[in-house]
Amino acid sequence: MLRNVGFMSAIFVAANVVLTASAYADDQDVIDYRQHIMKTMGEQAAAVGMIVEHRIPPDNFAVHAQILAVTAASAKKAFEPKVLGGEAKPEVWAKWADFSKRLDVLVTNTAELSKVAKDGGFAAAEAKLSTALTCKGCHEVYRVPKK
Amino acid sequence: MLRNVGFMSAIFVAANVVLTASAYADDQDVIDYRQHIMKTMGEQAAAVGMIVEHRIPPDNFAVHAQILAVTAASAKKAFEPKVLGGEAKPEVWAKWADFSKRLDVLVTNTAELSKVAKDGGFAAAEAKLSTALTCKGCHEVYRVPKK
Repeated sequence: MLRNVGFMSAIFVAANVVLTASAYADDQDVIDYRQHIMKTMGEQAAAVGMIVEHRIPPDNFAVHAQILAVTAASAKKAFEPKVLGGEAKPEVWAKWADFSKRLDVLVTNTAELSKVAKDGGFAAAEAKLSTALTCKGCHEVYRVPKK
Repeated sequence: MLRNVGFMSAIFVAANVVLTASAYADDQDVIDYRQHIMKTMGEQAAAVGMIVEHRIPPDNFAVHAQILAVTAASAKKAFEPKVLGGEAKPEVWAKWADFSKRLDVLVTNTAELSKVAKDGGFAAAEAKLSTALTCKGCHEVYRVPKK
């Protein structure tokens, strides 16, 4: 009987290991995942930039603002695992309180941008852009410079 | 007086040209813009793919589904200007009725995916993924193959 209990425990432990392995990613997966999120932000910020520069009509502006807000809200979870590498500087985790707070501010400000754009379009939201999209300031501290 | 009318008309025509130039993009801008939108879809679909393969936890699944739905809804406007080039095959505009209909279906199905995911998470939505994300079928017809 004791042997049976031991056997069942062994299965239970093994099952836990499998569950952990499937719920958490390996390091490259963690890096890839957060890059998918940040590239989404980059593509949408670039679309917004084209509207600001009058290179394309502003019809989709509220949609871009919404995507930026929703994506920003998904970013923190992607950076929570402390996995160095990719374009993230070690400062992301060394100064997590600051990095995390900046993400929160990004979430709040892009949500506000999205709301204003939904109600009043690009004309109403344009003045809020420089406050909402603080990409550069954060990248200067936390992203490895592009070569 | 006639000369003045002519002069004013000339100004009016010139103003129209300027307005047109600022409201509509040049060809490369049109291409760049639709690529920002499709790359957003690609990054988010890749994030979904990582969840499906259990390489990352499904916590953000509903957010990815929402972004896919909202982005899909913004895509048609980006393809409306008939500007060949980039990765779009000429078939996009030669078979616009079909291309446009496929985009509508994508919008409907990703919106449904997003709704189910919001209510029931990844577990509830997973079965709808293959119906919602028909990237490959559409790309085979309308996108220039990657080299």
